[in-house]
Amino acid sequence: MGQENGSVAERTEMRWNGWGDPAKATSLPRSVRALLPLLLGRIRTPAEPVELEDVRLDASALRPDDLAAFAEIVGHDRIDVSDDARIRHAGGRSTPDLLRRRRLHQEAPDAVILPGDHEEVAGVLAAAADRGVAVIPFGGGTSVVGALDPERGAHRAVVSLDMRRLTGLLRFDPVSGDAVLGAGTSGPDAEALLGAHGYELGHYPQSFRHATIGGFAAARSSGQNSAGYGRFDTMVTGIRVATPTGDIELGRSPGSAAGPDLIRVFLGSEGIFGVITEVRVRVHPIPHERMLESWTFPDFDAGLEALRQVVQQGGGPTVIRLSDEAETAVSLAQVGRIGKALSRGAGVVTVYEGAGVEERRARTAALLAAAGGTSAGDSGAEDWLDGRFDGPYLRDSLLDAGVFCETLETATTWSNIPTLKAAVTAALRDGLTGAGARSYVMCHVSHVYPTGASLYFTVLAGIRTDPLEVWAQVKARANDAIIAGGGTISHHHAVGRDHAPWLEQEIGETGVRILAAIKRELDPTGILNPGAVISDRVR
Amino acid sequence: MGQENGSVAERTEMRWNGWGDPAKATSLPRSVRALLPLLLGRIRTPAEPVELEDVRLDASALRPDDLAAFAEIVGHDRIDVSDDARIRHAGGRSTPDLLRRRRLHQEAPDAVILPGDHEEVAGVLAAAADRGVAVIPFGGGTSVVGALDPERGAHRAVVSLDMRRLTGLLRFDPVSGDAVLGAGTSGPDAEALLGAHGYELGHYPQSFRHATIGGFAAARSSGQNSAGYGRFDTMVTGIRVATPTGDIELGRSPGSAAGPDLIRVFLGSEGIFGVITEVRVRVHPIPHERMLESWTFPDFDAGLEALRQVVQQGGGPTVIRLSDEAETAVSLAQVGRIGKALSRGAGVVTVYEGAGVEERRARTAALLAAAGGTSAGDSGAEDWLDGRFDGPYLRDSLLDAGVFCETLETATTWSNIPTLKAAVTAALRDGLTGAGARSYVMCHVSHVYPTGASLYFTVLAGIRTDPLEVWAQVKARANDAIIAGGGTISHHHAVGRDHAPWLEQEIGETGVRILAAIKRELDPTGILNPGAVISDRVR
Repeated sequence: MGQENGSVAERTEMRWNGWGDPAKATSLPRSVRALLPLLLGRIRTPAEPVELEDVRLDASALRPDDLAAFAEIVGHDRIDVSDDARIRHAGGRSTPDLLRRRRLHQEAPDAVILPGDHEEVAGVLAAAADRGVAVIPFGGGTSVVGALDPERGAHRAVVSLDMRRLTGLLRFDPVSGDAVLGAGTSGPDAEALLGAHGYELGHYPQSFRHATIGGFAAARSSGQNSAGYGRFDTMVTGIRVATPTGDIELGRSPGSAAGPDLIRVFLGSEGIFGVITEVRVRVHPIPHERMLESWTFPDFDAGLEALRQVVQQGGGPTVIRLSDEAETAVSLAQVGRIGKALSRGAGVVTVYEGAGVEERRARTAALLAAAGGTSAGDSGAEDWLDGRFDGPYLRDSLLDAGVFCETLETATTWSNIPTLKAAVTAALRDGLTGAGARSYVMCHVSHVYPTGASLYFTVLAGIRTDPLEVWAQVKARANDAIIAGGGTISHHHAVGRDHAPWLEQEIGETGVRILAAIKRELDPTGILNPGAVISDRVR
Repeated sequence: MGQENGSVAERTEMRWNGWGDPAKATSLPRSVRALLPLLLGRIRTPAEPVELEDVRLDASALRPDDLAAFAEIVGHDRIDVSDDARIRHAGGRSTPDLLRRRRLHQEAPDAVILPGDHEEVAGVLAAAADRGVAVIPFGGGTSVVGALDPERGAHRAVVSLDMRRLTGLLRFDPVSGDAVLGAGTSGPDAEALLGAHGYELGHYPQSFRHATIGGFAAARSSGQNSAGYGRFDTMVTGIRVATPTGDIELGRSPGSAAGPDLIRVFLGSEGIFGVITEVRVRVHPIPHERMLESWTFPDFDAGLEALRQVVQQGGGPTVIRLSDEAETAVSLAQVGRIGKALSRGAGVVTVYEGAGVEERRARTAALLAAAGGTSAGDSGAEDWLDGRFDGPYLRDSLLDAGVFCETLETATTWSNIPTLKAAVTAALRDGLTGAGARSYVMCHVSHVYPTGASLYFTVLAGIRTDPLEVWAQVKARANDAIIAGGGTISHHHAVGRDHAPWLEQEIGETGVRILAAIKRELDPTGILNPGAVISDRVR
């Protein structure tokens, strides 16, 4: 095991009121601008966004003795009470988050604390519990479910615990393909550190460029290559967590029957039980072969049946995704091509990496063709690959142009997908129509499992009244449709505060009691991420 | 979804003091009898086993009002206080269990209760909690870690809750490959019910013929085809559980980020949180192609390296197992051939099932050959397949012949396997030598993962003093070696009472606190399986 700590790139700060690298923010492509009136009618031009320096925050509620106590643990220069830092930690990157960033008066945490190692994290939690200060763990800041809202619960103040200093490849065992990464390591930094040894994790969610390894674990992330390398859940082989009442380190062995798998208690816990400081992951040699192929199906249902056969046969592609007719028509899956041509049918992208790609492609292609697919060569798949992290930039420019744009996702069994998709689409469309907004609802399947798959919806709407208010109602309606229709309230965005009111319908009262019991044991004063996951059950 | 309840074969009652079908019990093969003196020296002939009718039990501690209360829920004829029923539920099938079955005075539960459905299970738990009666959930009775000991904890009585009536294929969705089975359904019954639809589960632990679906889930079982179809953990897509304080039903969707995966809280919970009544599992069409091939390697380390390469490449065999030199020498992996010839080197068995078997075999064979393996055709693998459930019968006849025989298992990362194997082997050998017993210790790898594998030890010994006492010491020494050497205290036998004292070293004090908090919430009076998993932490 080698140790190689902290040799990571300086992190690019995300836009404070939008997605990603400020240098990559662009205005809406002309082709998209031309398409929008066809989809949504006349768009109302919105007010200009506010400037960072014009935003007003309440004064920090932390007292000098709080700051002194935290400074004793992390050092004075690792506590930031500047407005700039507080605003940059005021929330995640959902569309409602971005709309709230357009307000003059904003809610923000009372300080940002930057611990340097596991012991400092544990120290901050103990001090915060002692002083009655709430703590919001903060990784890459990419939550789209309100997990980073500066909610203090019953406490007198709230701090954002930014994990960016807990980075690096802490241990690496190339024989076992097992690597321990600091929880604050970003996706690209993790891949760079592993890549130096010829290995990769292969976890590419859309948030990849900014999100952290700890965030992937805490939120049960799923990446675009999940068909080949699995959900992040399945990549995690161990975990180290600091809680207000003690540490825990789990994952002695890859296969175990030593009681329940407690790693799974922390995967998906979204910072309500403790703060993940290290994550041990399964990695694999960087694949040297890659094949791409895109396909067209007559319609979504035919494509769906094809995907099902491919995944149930097993040993197929590393990536497989299916866009419905609406998404295919505007080429949303290939961000660079949007609006250039209206395509028919339902598009499928496949990518193959690693051992046996040719044979796997041939076997998959045979199934896809037999199920009614037509190969469309590799260019469509290449376009998808090129633009696959760029969707959120497009959302920013849509918002600037007055077009409401948001996504939501669920998953269900194969047999239930058509019914659930129709129900959620109707809830979204009807909800927006009821609010007087024209909308365009698209959907794709991007994560497949032997027994079912995900459904990822993208909504465009021309909302003429308060979009935050309208969306809250429409989203609630969609969540109700998901629960009533047998779907999960989230496939990979997690629960946060936005989905918390629906969680009990998914896991039942007994399920919520289990989560609350664990929380009471580990965080008896309830300082950790108040209101997330199990909103109203724990003080 | 069809419903097809209860159409299962009448279950064959296991031998009360040994393994499996009484009709299959045999005396020790002549070839094995000839081999033993070479391995262990002169064996002392043990006392004759006791007859069932000679065993004395204490009178049942249940009062007439207890029996009346339980009868109100399940009916009078579903409560059995006969000595026969009580003895048959007095423990599992570890070697210590079987040695205890040779005593004249035995501990047993005060009654056996046979509920007929989920509601009756919930009713029995509520009544037992109300009356202060401990409950030991009982599936196939195949535990080898003391999970079925009739321990009453602080309670005045203890009942065995036999799940054999909760059987059947309750729902089946062939499109999604998703099936709900009653928790008391045995392995063969589950496969028969699914087989009628052309599907299978493909879960074949050595206990397959007797153990139940609920037991597989509660103990985190792993089957012989785990390389192809995964551990039972990964097959479970949903679960229904009755607890003393409420029911829970989990598993809405195959991929979810709706908080922590609470299914995993119950997988491995071994009846301390609740009683699993239904298990939803991923199933697949019965594969029509199968290829077998056995291989010989110069030694265990060469074989280990080959297995590692095969699993890390992925998409290989459905079964792959490696016997060390000691196990290969006596052909223990092929029960029918034991003692017929002393083989050299380290034997590997591979089985391929499902799509692309030829290509997968060719790709795997190339790796095995490059790693120093020599193909030995298919007969060795066929012998393994034929005898793979028969090991425990052999143990019974060894015990009858005065040879102590027991197994234990762990798992660790690939890089740590040689060190851990040596440490556990030394602990077993030295412990037995210290007790004046000659021993023969064998080991195999039968479950492989990208980051590591299992180690399964079989111990033969000529113990001349009290074998229960000697083994308790030797097993403790082996457990210490496993924990000190970085292994898990169990790969698939689970924790039960036998491993409970070591669990805290594996999951830490915080881990035990989490389990205890869940137990307090769901089973506040601690009636469920007292002393299992977290022995001394919960009243």
